[in-house]
Amino acid sequence: MPSISQRGIIMPSSPIRKLVPYSDDAKARGLRVFHLNIGQPDILTPEVALNAVREAKIPIVEYSNSAGMPEYRRKLSKYYQSVGINITPDQMLVTCGGSEAVLFAFMSCLDPLDEIIVPEPFYANYEAFAAAAGACVVPITSTIENGFTLPSIEEFEKVITNKTKAIMICNPNNPTGYLYSEQEMNQLRDLIIKHDLFLICDEVYREFCYDGAQYFSSMYLKGVDDNVIMVDSVSKRYSECGLRIGLLASRNKAVISSALKLAQARLCPPTFGQIAAMASLDVPEEYFRDMNQEYCKRRNFLLDGLNKIPGVYSPMPRGAFYTVARLPIDDSDKFCKWLLADFSYNNQTVMLAPAAGFYSNRTLGRNEVRIAYTLKCEDLAIALDLLARALKQYPGRTPESGSPLTEGEKRMRTMRD
Amino acid sequence: MPSISQRGIIMPSSPIRKLVPYSDDAKARGLRVFHLNIGQPDILTPEVALNAVREAKIPIVEYSNSAGMPEYRRKLSKYYQSVGINITPDQMLVTCGGSEAVLFAFMSCLDPLDEIIVPEPFYANYEAFAAAAGACVVPITSTIENGFTLPSIEEFEKVITNKTKAIMICNPNNPTGYLYSEQEMNQLRDLIIKHDLFLICDEVYREFCYDGAQYFSSMYLKGVDDNVIMVDSVSKRYSECGLRIGLLASRNKAVISSALKLAQARLCPPTFGQIAAMASLDVPEEYFRDMNQEYCKRRNFLLDGLNKIPGVYSPMPRGAFYTVARLPIDDSDKFCKWLLADFSYNNQTVMLAPAAGFYSNRTLGRNEVRIAYTLKCEDLAIALDLLARALKQYPGRTPESGSPLTEGEKRMRTMRD
Repeated sequence: MPSISQRGIIMPSSPIRKLVPYSDDAKARGLRVFHLNIGQPDILTPEVALNAVREAKIPIVEYSNSAGMPEYRRKLSKYYQSVGINITPDQMLVTCGGSEAVLFAFMSCLDPLDEIIVPEPFYANYEAFAAAAGACVVPITSTIENGFTLPSIEEFEKVITNKTKAIMICNPNNPTGYLYSEQEMNQLRDLIIKHDLFLICDEVYREFCYDGAQYFSSMYLKGVDDNVIMVDSVSKRYSECGLRIGLLASRNKAVISSALKLAQARLCPPTFGQIAAMASLDVPEEYFRDMNQEYCKRRNFLLDGLNKIPGVYSPMPRGAFYTVARLPIDDSDKFCKWLLADFSYNNQTVMLAPAAGFYSNRTLGRNEVRIAYTLKCEDLAIALDLLARALKQYPGRTPESGSPLTEGEKRMRTMRD
Repeated sequence: MPSISQRGIIMPSSPIRKLVPYSDDAKARGLRVFHLNIGQPDILTPEVALNAVREAKIPIVEYSNSAGMPEYRRKLSKYYQSVGINITPDQMLVTCGGSEAVLFAFMSCLDPLDEIIVPEPFYANYEAFAAAAGACVVPITSTIENGFTLPSIEEFEKVITNKTKAIMICNPNNPTGYLYSEQEMNQLRDLIIKHDLFLICDEVYREFCYDGAQYFSSMYLKGVDDNVIMVDSVSKRYSECGLRIGLLASRNKAVISSALKLAQARLCPPTFGQIAAMASLDVPEEYFRDMNQEYCKRRNFLLDGLNKIPGVYSPMPRGAFYTVARLPIDDSDKFCKWLLADFSYNNQTVMLAPAAGFYSNRTLGRNEVRIAYTLKCEDLAIALDLLARALKQYPGRTPESGSPLTEGEKRMRTMRD
């Protein structure tokens, strides 16, 4: 039997999807599973998008432009202008989801054995795309104690080598919900100038910022037009995960022209997805305002509930719709499986994403989980109750992490609450 | 400025799409351009597929299963059974077009510097995907004089090294229209057993076989379940290029499990595409029969017309909807540009794909073009007339290749016509 590639062997499995067989099994046993594990919004896709698909007059579903439909890119350019980002249609490539934009960015910037620095915990699939490109993710750790702020520039400097080609961040952050400040973004700017690096910024949660916090795009940074690559997607913004429409944007012509060669090789992004995504640009302001209010309410409800459970701690996230929580447990992989396989209350259980999968250093995050607040508050209430009950029963509960807050944690909590 | 990856630099441009600016320019000058350059069928997408999209009740366009919707894969399994291919839903991954299936196959089988043997001329984008995987395409040449039959097994043996991991073919072939025989497929079978290689077979033109010729799938081969990987797509079969729905199939569990990790990293294939593709499986037999008759008529009309033009030769293709023709010209890149930039007759011109882009060895195919017969016969008639007139006027016309047929060519023509 011929052997598969080393790349195929070392490629990590998705930590978010690997527990799916256990939840399928739980459901088969008649349990209701509350999904706090995935970022699948329950917000309705805008009617204007669905209607555009229903009413599309396309007798032949033809290939479109490899870079994306020109009229969609022109309309996108106006959307970006409305959020203060000046990019022209020829500085964008419409991609098959934000995922393909990450892949194109890595393929265009990284050669085999090149290094890309990513603050951990990070969106686990970055590691899979780096493996696809043959490149290495070099993590630097942000900590729950510090509320997942950007690690200090000294930490970056420590790991920069002659193989370092890029830094990647996700802002607002998945999985931590952390929103990078203008000051942090400018620190990164100085660093990428100093070492002549790319900055790849995943900004798919742009519209999800709370407490009036200002989002600061990588595209706002001055003097680094050739360094910055922005990844975007309509999946979360308009609750359109299944359309598979994303975007790669850069003012660096060589990056766009390299990525365009990849885009031409795969022919084009999906037609119906582009039609729906283009129509979505017409949603009224209220759509975002209402969505933002709803998520803000859920976040407050979730974080309040989480931090009231003895031994549980989560810093207050200011963006996206996730938070990372520390639990009084031995191992979150075991705990999350146990929730699905061995726990139930009133025929219900809860599914969480073990945080270890979001750390490149697999010894970290073992007592942390990622929790998505994409469910309504009434469901979050049940899920929180289930979690509290489960933590009381879980055989691997650790008294240590159930200890009172440290002084640092108390400070963080007071600052953010 | 940080430099892009070597991969991004060496990645070839699509030979099919690189002339697009010239045709755009010709159209801007008011010319009607007859597109013989692209495999975009003019056959209508089945109504049943378009209706399924119009009537889909999906208030939230959610992520689907990374491997593709389970009900779609179950239904696909029945379709494959109907064409004699036994594969189960868990031996398939629904991909974003056949393109992604090629990428997943290469990523799962090839490590950087590994080699994959492909008979040339071949679908140019294989080279881009190999570059993405860091692997090398090793071409062996099939010739127009031999009607693009499979090169002899001795030719394969000559280039097999310890870096060779796979052989790739496209059957029926793009760009040549050649249909590999059962005997040729069995020769490949023996070869991959002998050297323990993967056989990756792109079978997207399965339904396009003419003259009652029998299509012989790689999946029919005995005793090579772990070696064979099939790539498929609905693009051509149902005239649905813009859906971006393809398939990777293999009975090798390690291949599917490696490709699934990539599939999970990019989350899922497009939802609307899957809905339309699934409904397309309900098209009646007549759809294929009518389509086949129409393409057969076009092929006969085109080949007859081509071979009547002095100095032009094309062997009779028995599958897909392309043929490669030899023209009495110095350089097909120049000629194809000249057609768009400097030639017109009655405000019309014709666009062809220079064949050099389909050869890995760039010295080959310089006097060949790929011609797609995806236009109606009345349009093909005009296009043929334009081509004949253009060849008379083209300053780079070569008397040599305008010479009468060689004995070998005459034999081939008699055999196939």
